[in-house]
Amino acid sequence: MEIKVLEEVLAANELIAREINALLSENRIFGVNMMSSPGSGKTTILEKTIEALMPEVNVGVIAGDVATTRDAERLSEHNASVIQIDTDTFGGACHLEAQWVKRALPTFDLKKLDVLFIENIGNLICPSGYNLGEHIKVVVVSVTEGEDKPIKYPAIFSMAHVVLVNKIDLLPHLDFDIVKLRAHINNVAANSIVFELSARSDEGMDKWVEWLKLRVKEFK
Amino acid sequence: MEIKVLEEVLAANELIAREINALLSENRIFGVNMMSSPGSGKTTILEKTIEALMPEVNVGVIAGDVATTRDAERLSEHNASVIQIDTDTFGGACHLEAQWVKRALPTFDLKKLDVLFIENIGNLICPSGYNLGEHIKVVVVSVTEGEDKPIKYPAIFSMAHVVLVNKIDLLPHLDFDIVKLRAHINNVAANSIVFELSARSDEGMDKWVEWLKLRVKEFK
Repeated sequence: MEIKVLEEVLAANELIAREINALLSENRIFGVNMMSSPGSGKTTILEKTIEALMPEVNVGVIAGDVATTRDAERLSEHNASVIQIDTDTFGGACHLEAQWVKRALPTFDLKKLDVLFIENIGNLICPSGYNLGEHIKVVVVSVTEGEDKPIKYPAIFSMAHVVLVNKIDLLPHLDFDIVKLRAHINNVAANSIVFELSARSDEGMDKWVEWLKLRVKEFK
Repeated sequence: MEIKVLEEVLAANELIAREINALLSENRIFGVNMMSSPGSGKTTILEKTIEALMPEVNVGVIAGDVATTRDAERLSEHNASVIQIDTDTFGGACHLEAQWVKRALPTFDLKKLDVLFIENIGNLICPSGYNLGEHIKVVVVSVTEGEDKPIKYPAIFSMAHVVLVNKIDLLPHLDFDIVKLRAHINNVAANSIVFELSARSDEGMDKWVEWLKLRVKEFK
């Protein structure tokens, strides 16, 4: 019975995700679903990405959090339109669902947006089951988390169009084998595009931003 | 309806957790539920802790993972009795449940164990809902994850009897304010005991191990 209910929830989510996708596409808004474990640096990457995109590219953000509005506050400082989804309202859910994203969309001026980032809940498991109407899924993994995350959480990595390997400025201080990480990513997400970067030192950020700008432009 | 089903699942889990707790207590086995986000260093801490405890203290480990048997393999190298629960079998569950722990218990020689570590799934949200019959909950957070994790994931931190702050060897290379982290832990988990350590450099490991040895001894 539990499984039956979950199947119904996922099927309903998929229908709403398609509606969102149609609405975003209609308005030429490129939807990006950002996923990662807690503390991998999603919000800092988003802050730096928004700084690099604006005002040329008009950015909207839906920031998901289980508790606090910290991420939304941080992101609001960069002139993007930001709305927070607090999953505490939904029993502390461990992922975002399409129905909540759909409800958040009317708060944006969709005619003006070029890209919508959806910052998912910090979790490498649950968000993988829920499409949110995005055009691409981005998974962030930081080099402080060990090389094996892609093979330990294959579901989410296998869906990634883009993998952002963050915190490479710390590599000299870690016993971390980035070649091993690349091999593990290749194992489960062979078609993903991988950018190695540091949102703190800005190293590598330009390549990711450039790639994203091009996608947004193509989408117009 | 979805919520109703979840309530029933949690109530059933709680009953089994109590059975496990009784069984462990009867055998004077100290049960430790280890929780954290992916990549915070749970397995490395466990490896070092087992090394420091054995053979004086007899250790058993139940290692939960969504995919791969890597953690169980790593832990088996330290002479502890290790069993793996692969949640892939249970739809890739984002937490361990008491029923799976109960099923795993008969594989141990309970008469011989002094402590049982349950290494939960790497996730700061879902495991908080499921007691596993443990005597204490330990939450690991690494200093590379940012200072705000306790207030962003208050449910799990508020349950922690012990918080292990890991990777302190990296502090010189981070913009990390450990005083801020301590304040955030104090905010949501005022009664928890905090150990700052590095499983990589061994700094601070002795205090945690000493504390744990004392608890295990008291429990005999």
